[in-house]
Amino acid sequence: MAFPMSTRPDLRLDVERTGRIGMPEAVLCQFKTVDQATGAVTGLLDTHDTVIATRITSEQSPKLEALRPQLIGTSTMAWQLRPPTSKSVALVSAGTSDAPVADEAAITLTALGHQARRITDVGVAGVHRLQSALPEFEHADAVIAIAGMEGALPTVLAGLIGKPIIAVPTSVGYGSSFEGVTALLTMLSSCAPGISVVGIDNGYGAACAVHRILQQ
Amino acid sequence: MAFPMSTRPDLRLDVERTGRIGMPEAVLCQFKTVDQATGAVTGLLDTHDTVIATRITSEQSPKLEALRPQLIGTSTMAWQLRPPTSKSVALVSAGTSDAPVADEAAITLTALGHQARRITDVGVAGVHRLQSALPEFEHADAVIAIAGMEGALPTVLAGLIGKPIIAVPTSVGYGSSFEGVTALLTMLSSCAPGISVVGIDNGYGAACAVHRILQQ
Amino acid sequence: MAFPMSTRPDLRLDVERTGRIGMPEAVLCQFKTVDQATGAVTGLLDTHDTVIATRITSEQSPKLEALRPQLIGTSTMAWQLRPPTSKSVALVSAGTSDAPVADEAAITLTALGHQARRITDVGVAGVHRLQSALPEFEHADAVIAIAGMEGALPTVLAGLIGKPIIAVPTSVGYGSSFEGVTALLTMLSSCAPGISVVGIDNGYGAACAVHRILQQ
Amino acid sequence: MAFPMSTRPDLRLDVERTGRIGMPEAVLCQFKTVDQATGAVTGLLDTHDTVIATRITSEQSPKLEALRPQLIGTSTMAWQLRPPTSKSVALVSAGTSDAPVADEAAITLTALGHQARRITDVGVAGVHRLQSALPEFEHADAVIAIAGMEGALPTVLAGLIGKPIIAVPTSVGYGSSFEGVTALLTMLSSCAPGISVVGIDNGYGAACAVHRILQQ
Amino acid sequence: MAFPMSTRPDLRLDVERTGRIGMPEAVLCQFKTVDQATGAVTGLLDTHDTVIATRITSEQSPKLEALRPQLIGTSTMAWQLRPPTSKSVALVSAGTSDAPVADEAAITLTALGHQARRITDVGVAGVHRLQSALPEFEHADAVIAIAGMEGALPTVLAGLIGKPIIAVPTSVGYGSSFEGVTALLTMLSSCAPGISVVGIDNGYGAACAVHRILQQ
Amino acid sequence: MAFPMSTRPDLRLDVERTGRIGMPEAVLCQFKTVDQATGAVTGLLDTHDTVIATRITSEQSPKLEALRPQLIGTSTMAWQLRPPTSKSVALVSAGTSDAPVADEAAITLTALGHQARRITDVGVAGVHRLQSALPEFEHADAVIAIAGMEGALPTVLAGLIGKPIIAVPTSVGYGSSFEGVTALLTMLSSCAPGISVVGIDNGYGAACAVHRILQQ
Amino acid sequence: MAFPMSTRPDLRLDVERTGRIGMPEAVLCQFKTVDQATGAVTGLLDTHDTVIATRITSEQSPKLEALRPQLIGTSTMAWQLRPPTSKSVALVSAGTSDAPVADEAAITLTALGHQARRITDVGVAGVHRLQSALPEFEHADAVIAIAGMEGALPTVLAGLIGKPIIAVPTSVGYGSSFEGVTALLTMLSSCAPGISVVGIDNGYGAACAVHRILQQ
Amino acid sequence: MAFPMSTRPDLRLDVERTGRIGMPEAVLCQFKTVDQATGAVTGLLDTHDTVIATRITSEQSPKLEALRPQLIGTSTMAWQLRPPTSKSVALVSAGTSDAPVADEAAITLTALGHQARRITDVGVAGVHRLQSALPEFEHADAVIAIAGMEGALPTVLAGLIGKPIIAVPTSVGYGSSFEGVTALLTMLSSCAPGISVVGIDNGYGAACAVHRILQQ
Repeated sequence: MAFPMSTRPDLRLDVERTGRIGMPEAVLCQFKTVDQATGAVTGLLDTHDTVIATRITSEQSPKLEALRPQLIGTSTMAWQLRPPTSKSVALVSAGTSDAPVADEAAITLTALGHQARRITDVGVAGVHRLQSALPEFEHADAVIAIAGMEGALPTVLAGLIGKPIIAVPTSVGYGSSFEGVTALLTMLSSCAPGISVVGIDNGYGAACAVHRILQQ
Repeated sequence: MAFPMSTRPDLRLDVERTGRIGMPEAVLCQFKTVDQATGAVTGLLDTHDTVIATRITSEQSPKLEALRPQLIGTSTMAWQLRPPTSKSVALVSAGTSDAPVADEAAITLTALGHQARRITDVGVAGVHRLQSALPEFEHADAVIAIAGMEGALPTVLAGLIGKPIIAVPTSVGYGSSFEGVTALLTMLSSCAPGISVVGIDNGYGAACAVHRILQQ
Repeated sequence: MAFPMSTRPDLRLDVERTGRIGMPEAVLCQFKTVDQATGAVTGLLDTHDTVIATRITSEQSPKLEALRPQLIGTSTMAWQLRPPTSKSVALVSAGTSDAPVADEAAITLTALGHQARRITDVGVAGVHRLQSALPEFEHADAVIAIAGMEGALPTVLAGLIGKPIIAVPTSVGYGSSFEGVTALLTMLSSCAPGISVVGIDNGYGAACAVHRILQQ
Repeated sequence: MAFPMSTRPDLRLDVERTGRIGMPEAVLCQFKTVDQATGAVTGLLDTHDTVIATRITSEQSPKLEALRPQLIGTSTMAWQLRPPTSKSVALVSAGTSDAPVADEAAITLTALGHQARRITDVGVAGVHRLQSALPEFEHADAVIAIAGMEGALPTVLAGLIGKPIIAVPTSVGYGSSFEGVTALLTMLSSCAPGISVVGIDNGYGAACAVHRILQQ
Repeated sequence: MAFPMSTRPDLRLDVERTGRIGMPEAVLCQFKTVDQATGAVTGLLDTHDTVIATRITSEQSPKLEALRPQLIGTSTMAWQLRPPTSKSVALVSAGTSDAPVADEAAITLTALGHQARRITDVGVAGVHRLQSALPEFEHADAVIAIAGMEGALPTVLAGLIGKPIIAVPTSVGYGSSFEGVTALLTMLSSCAPGISVVGIDNGYGAACAVHRILQQ
Repeated sequence: MAFPMSTRPDLRLDVERTGRIGMPEAVLCQFKTVDQATGAVTGLLDTHDTVIATRITSEQSPKLEALRPQLIGTSTMAWQLRPPTSKSVALVSAGTSDAPVADEAAITLTALGHQARRITDVGVAGVHRLQSALPEFEHADAVIAIAGMEGALPTVLAGLIGKPIIAVPTSVGYGSSFEGVTALLTMLSSCAPGISVVGIDNGYGAACAVHRILQQ
Repeated sequence: MAFPMSTRPDLRLDVERTGRIGMPEAVLCQFKTVDQATGAVTGLLDTHDTVIATRITSEQSPKLEALRPQLIGTSTMAWQLRPPTSKSVALVSAGTSDAPVADEAAITLTALGHQARRITDVGVAGVHRLQSALPEFEHADAVIAIAGMEGALPTVLAGLIGKPIIAVPTSVGYGSSFEGVTALLTMLSSCAPGISVVGIDNGYGAACAVHRILQQ
Repeated sequence: MAFPMSTRPDLRLDVERTGRIGMPEAVLCQFKTVDQATGAVTGLLDTHDTVIATRITSEQSPKLEALRPQLIGTSTMAWQLRPPTSKSVALVSAGTSDAPVADEAAITLTALGHQARRITDVGVAGVHRLQSALPEFEHADAVIAIAGMEGALPTVLAGLIGKPIIAVPTSVGYGSSFEGVTALLTMLSSCAPGISVVGIDNGYGAACAVHRILQQ
């Protein structure tokens, strides 16, 4: 008798989450089989207003694209976008290497109805670039600041503007960046007041933190 | 002269372990060659009442299936199950990603004669799900609570029921979950009294800890 | 010739910070001499609208009280409060041990004109306490959730309400709480979406993060 | 206007915890003022069947002794003991240095009605001592094994007996024992099956874990 | 102009090392190209009495076997063995998974002229196995004790015999064994007197430490 | 509608960096796609005097070689070298395994116009090798000392010469070298005065630190 | 017979160090008794051109002041200053709390004959302060940048000027600054090219690293 | 009823340890009360041939001196010395700060009958000092090398002599020496073959490791 323990298809989806907190349950694909990932997305499409799948592997990608997502990023997809709100979020990052995390945040925000505007290549090693980009932040309701390596971008930015700033450390870097730990610690110890931080590479979490602000 | 140092087949099995502690030696396959794994299982089949192989690799899996296990899970198999006891264990986990660890615990419990009942999708981000599942715990003699990421499930559960709770942190997660370290620390620092914890991903160890309780 | 290197009294205060980001520079007293601390406060009183001193040591406390602060907490004081805004913040914590951190957040919020309402003794080991306190959160514009030990409070709360939640890990605890590291990691790895986190014991930073939200 | 924020005496005690889980809320004294500690104990004396105070500081000790506890250990006290059960627990430790943790476990067990029998000086550097003490374990319903430094005691014991074993790492030691981290990791990685572990120095937690087993 | 910086073949071998310390320079293959590895071995064959290559990769293995080593282990080879001494070393390990490290130690000892006797499957979860194997240690001049996971074997052994014991932590294990860190810390914090430890997986270093003892 | 978020080709290059600090922006290739890497190099070739690409992957290598670099190392390339200065740098390392890091430093220095002279195989296990190589340091204006494993080379060197010494820890090693952390800590804690250190494997950073010295 | 092992007064001073590397041996007082500290200083006064004592404890301070130092800082003193060179060093720090480390660097530089100019209160939370202070750096031959907390100051500075920059992380801060580890990691992972770093709080080491540059 | 749990005086001494392993049980005083420490020493004086007490606190010191030890060091004492053997041990350390650890090793060796010869002030920052001291090592049967900070001394020494070398990392140092962790890692990762290491500050353990060698 084979023991088909882990093949059970029943998933107790938290379908009332949107009612409680204004955000649906997302599908974290990385640790799921292809079938589990597509099954979870399909299940949510029937019961939720918007569906977001994050950390999609290259193996899962074709099957999930077959479900015709409206937004496709490096490793994030979304279906059934919410109608646009009037809110806008500035999504600032230092380099092209942060794209997967920035995509995850931008697609999540877009799916939830907000506008996500990218401001890139403003690393603090050339601080004038950030200063000259300040007008681009003016109409933003909140800022997501993504940075790897030494992670100083949110600190400098937080000394320049008074908007809500959610910082996302990324695992981009090598050696002494310790897969995001350095950037995380920098952001948590910032000498500029009022930065708050989400987990390493957690673009989805940063978007949700901003959504909590915007839906008030 | 070639020096056949590491090809020696003799394994000193601890055949009297069951007599001393009521549990047989299991075969941890992950660091063995295919031949070492099948050799260890075959050796135990002759000398033990029940045989459990854990952390089976995809390379080892076909050869071990050829030995006709009675229970097959994601990376665990068992042979020569013990006769059923009257004991029942609730095996609670947050999501589908924890399946390999949950399988390891469930198959070990089943091989030792106990009933393992799964309760899934009760993550603490929707705490009502756990509360509405409380009746399912009523007839359990003990609980194994498996959780990755922030690992808060055992804490909330331990405030709701007075059963023995063995917590298993899993390496599921990314970034700030640090391959199970975060969940491990959470469980060890729980503000709810009387949770005890086994090593990261150690479903087998949790089942054995429960078996020690049930065989008194 | 004695070399009076570190006795120099000149402090370049960042007096325009309020204009840029809406928050004044605070005085972190812990690493200052008594004279440096009182000097910094006195200097700010002349040039700023509101002045906050944090992490005041017992040695500094009498001298700072002599400067007649309007708010006095365990290790925080404030002078020249801003006029009240219409905003209200729920400040939730698990126990009495978190008081110094909670005071720091509450006094900072009050000095900046917001109302800080305390909700205490709602640890997740008795999750019903938090659930029955939900109405107290209804009129809050944002939430600061303070927790030590295993730090699960913000996760459970974030599954129940959709408000902005800033989590503060505290160094309260012993052994496996590792002076706040466990709570910090738990909060960063939360399975509930949209929690953002400030540094260990940084009640001031949490209040500033909320102020960034409220001043939009 | 002074701001008496942290002087508020109201404590929301979780008075129904005993009904839910069979264990009362204990008072962790270490981070409380003398008044907070005595206030918490006094409050619980009125509403609970048994009251346990742990990690009492030398400053708090006289005031708490004035409340006439029935059990007094190195830094633990208990009031209003439960009537004796028929259960017995073996409390094994390597040396005299573990006494505060052992006291915390023993007093908690005694307050909950169980018999706690000490077995000491059985360090694994002289493994015959442990082997010759095995008859003392025979009538125990469960075992709490306390060890600092390299923490190997529970591993050796778990290969000799089949009882439930809760291991407690202690911060006793210096240098490479890293304040209990080494013992904690050893216990979590044990090659002997079925050890479960509580936090560093958490004798109270170990006793509660055993109580969950004994009250089934 | 291409810049052939890293293709330079000149290796300053420390050819007088044997004269100074009685041990030749070994070739650590892991971080070398196939050509660098064979080049280093060939170079040493001309100038040294015995040559040992460690941590050979599967890619390097055929080319190094073509150089006709006298001893071949899992990832270690040796050429030009020294004449036998009268010394004997007991090489004790817990399981088959430690074979690569044990091979590295055994081949190094054999190449240096000593006899290496294996004693396996004596894990401390069945401590009687170690005790019944004690006569096998009697004629050993020194002991190398190899262990992964919780690493308690050297501690128990050091309480039973008075021989020199060099402990080698291995990276075998998963989860809470943290790739050998747990075993390393256990060995360094041992409550049994006089264990000394080499780096994780460093079988070669342990053999050299023993050789220092035996050549006195 | 597909969301081509991360395919945007616009890169805000910091083209005035050379004017400000005398060093151009380099291209860190490791986290870029092949197209992003070649795009970044091509962009810089038009606007900068010299272009350096570091941490080139094997996939990127052919496309970047097609851009006809003047210097090619293990994973570093350079275009448009600066005219030679009169400065010379000694680049000392312990073994062949450090070649990728040494190449990165040497090519960067050469591109910036300085002469990079290699001194290899001077590990401190045979300290006479370093001492006999001292004349080779005499005409150097600065020294870059590269070392993995225990990282003691810069310490011994700094006790022998008074030149500026920039130390680079490398991730070469296994087990207790913890991917460069051990070498990093050794260099930071050196008992020899005046060593300064760059990040793990950061040969480029070391060369830039030296360039800052040489361009004064 | 009492065994006066640790009372032996003979100190083998490395009196030729100045001849070899241009810097004398300093006296690290922190781990010495008062007598050992004064003895070491007295011994060096006879044999060296300049003498520096660092990390002087409050207990040692009066006895060392009695030896009539020419420079006295928070915990550093110097005797027998070298004649002035033409070199000047900018010593930049964020706040008053870094004074002990800044003093250690400044006194060491002054003792070695260089001019140390302080630039303070230029934290990156108000980046304009640093920018407006740039002219003060113009005549410096090198820069020492001292920072605690998130440690971003050297990164921003290194993007603005091309001088040699030695960064010193300090243990000033609390919670997530982890006693200087956060600042250290930030500095090592800086996205600005050519920062090199010394150990936490090691102002003396930074001054020596600069001296190596200036004495070329 | 007061519960005199931790006042029990009975200590199961491992009196046969000397017979098994040739070394008596020592008394680790640090975590004992004054009475427990003197009680343990008194008990051993009756039953053992030699008695060693380590890590004696200043509070315990007078009472233990009253027991008339034959050897007294910084924090170590010994009674009833063994008759002299013909063996000699070189005890090398870098500075005066390591005296407590060196005393612990030297007194233990002397108590066990061996001669301990000190060689001090041979730090690797002036490597000629170590080289000129080499004749002092010639008649040693084994070497104990004690070092804090970067801990490179054993590595350099192991490249110069072929004797057994036991390395002891010490917690002396500050900042990046991380209370001995840096020295420990350096010693474990040494590029010189055959160093073995004991725990941080464990001079007693090093002496016992040497004694195992000398008693063969």
